[in-house]
Amino acid sequence: MIERVEQEIQRLVKEVGYEKAYELFEKLSGGKRLRARLIEKISGENEKSALLAAIVELIHAASLLHDDVIDDAELRRGKPSVNATEGSKVAVMLGDILYSKAFSELVEFDKTIAKTISSSVTALSVGEMLDVELAKSFNADEKKYMHMLYLKTATLIEAAAACAAMLSGKESKRYALFGKNLGLSFQIIDDILDITADEKTLGKPAMNDFTEGKVTLPYIYLFESLDDEAKAKLIKLHGKKLEPHEVEWIKTQMEKHGSIAKAYRYAQTLSEEAKKAVEDEAELVAILDKMLQRSY
Amino acid sequence: MIERVEQEIQRLVKEVGYEKAYELFEKLSGGKRLRARLIEKISGENEKSALLAAIVELIHAASLLHDDVIDDAELRRGKPSVNATEGSKVAVMLGDILYSKAFSELVEFDKTIAKTISSSVTALSVGEMLDVELAKSFNADEKKYMHMLYLKTATLIEAAAACAAMLSGKESKRYALFGKNLGLSFQIIDDILDITADEKTLGKPAMNDFTEGKVTLPYIYLFESLDDEAKAKLIKLHGKKLEPHEVEWIKTQMEKHGSIAKAYRYAQTLSEEAKKAVEDEAELVAILDKMLQRSY
Repeated sequence: MIERVEQEIQRLVKEVGYEKAYELFEKLSGGKRLRARLIEKISGENEKSALLAAIVELIHAASLLHDDVIDDAELRRGKPSVNATEGSKVAVMLGDILYSKAFSELVEFDKTIAKTISSSVTALSVGEMLDVELAKSFNADEKKYMHMLYLKTATLIEAAAACAAMLSGKESKRYALFGKNLGLSFQIIDDILDITADEKTLGKPAMNDFTEGKVTLPYIYLFESLDDEAKAKLIKLHGKKLEPHEVEWIKTQMEKHGSIAKAYRYAQTLSEEAKKAVEDEAELVAILDKMLQRSY
Repeated sequence: MIERVEQEIQRLVKEVGYEKAYELFEKLSGGKRLRARLIEKISGENEKSALLAAIVELIHAASLLHDDVIDDAELRRGKPSVNATEGSKVAVMLGDILYSKAFSELVEFDKTIAKTISSSVTALSVGEMLDVELAKSFNADEKKYMHMLYLKTATLIEAAAACAAMLSGKESKRYALFGKNLGLSFQIIDDILDITADEKTLGKPAMNDFTEGKVTLPYIYLFESLDDEAKAKLIKLHGKKLEPHEVEWIKTQMEKHGSIAKAYRYAQTLSEEAKKAVEDEAELVAILDKMLQRSY
């Protein structure tokens, strides 16, 4: 099924008419195409859904290009990032090309769909800025963190699912909730894996988030459980390269206070809500189950 | 008249709902608002034209933010650039916020207008990439240079003028030509001023373009007129900080071979074509005249 979407993506990038952009795009890993798969599962396989899926994947690719510039990331999906091989300038412009091409294809859809998708990109960009802001100091505010997570990682999936529902005359609100909670719980699991998985599985040092200044949910929960002295110690470790004994200390504390289990339960709750919203769609429920099993 | 557009711009940026983005945007210089003025002159002052003008100005602002990241520019319109004060990450994300907000407002217009404006952003981004590409070595190909110039600086003005005409039921083709040639001749004059104006007027070192690797039209014309030995000398000076005697040599050669005069004549020809396309609109003709007088 995804073949048709891949062809649409190729067609759109070729239509830009700039060989170098096409070559660079070809070198990117397409990833799991989660958003495209969701769209096709929700609205069925047809011309319109393939175009919408291609548009959303172009937007996602553009956001990753800019995200890697923001994070100075060397790797993306196991390959060297465009900013690493071609420089951040090329990554910025290639992102702009993909964004604008995606937007200019949105005119093929009705106003609500075009507005929903394009607004989610504004939210996503605000989320990126908030992410950078929050990482500047130790943020212990769960609400702030979850708001950032929603904007940065959930709004595009939420918009994609809602618009796929609109395309096929389904009730968009239910699918929006599904998409939103899928995005949020997916990210929480990712944050957990950054702590629990080993370096080899992650392809980056363990606890890399915290070193980069990102105080994810397990750290926020841990902080809430600690006494003042331990709180100060945790804050001191924030944003720096951790020694093995420091990694150990954080892990032991998280174990003791059940911080990771708490974050995991939250991801589960979100996922349960999502399942309930689309309980009549076995394939969507299966995606949620599979996603939760990534952890532990 | 432009007051209404400024209010629209403010409204749109506020609507994003992120205080920091609004504050950063407020600090940007709005510039001459050339594109907004053109739109209002072509389609009259009304709600729709004010919204279109605001959208185009947001797109222009976003493109400048990314352009300054690409060029590592320290200054923009006499003020420190966002990438200089806030870092290039913030500049990239603020640009993305403005781009996507602009795109999500385009749904208020009919399909042709939305497509014309959004496609021009793809062209503009391709133009930026080509600009970086061309600056890597000495490019003596006038056609390639003019194609890049068209994409990078003329397509958005062309699109803005064409869409303003559509809004008011005027013949869009004539206005598209006007916008395109205005953009091109404006940029050629800019390229000339980089050579002829003094450092104080420019706010940057003279011949900065050439030092940055940009072989603009006067250099291309000069190259065509030189013998092999002088050609080699010019190529050697490309992309490096010029000594006063080297600046002098280039200027003397350009004088001798009439390279600047030739570029100026080309800008004039383009401008004459533009005038002819809108000869019944005195205000638009006046803009062209004023623009050409910036030089010499």
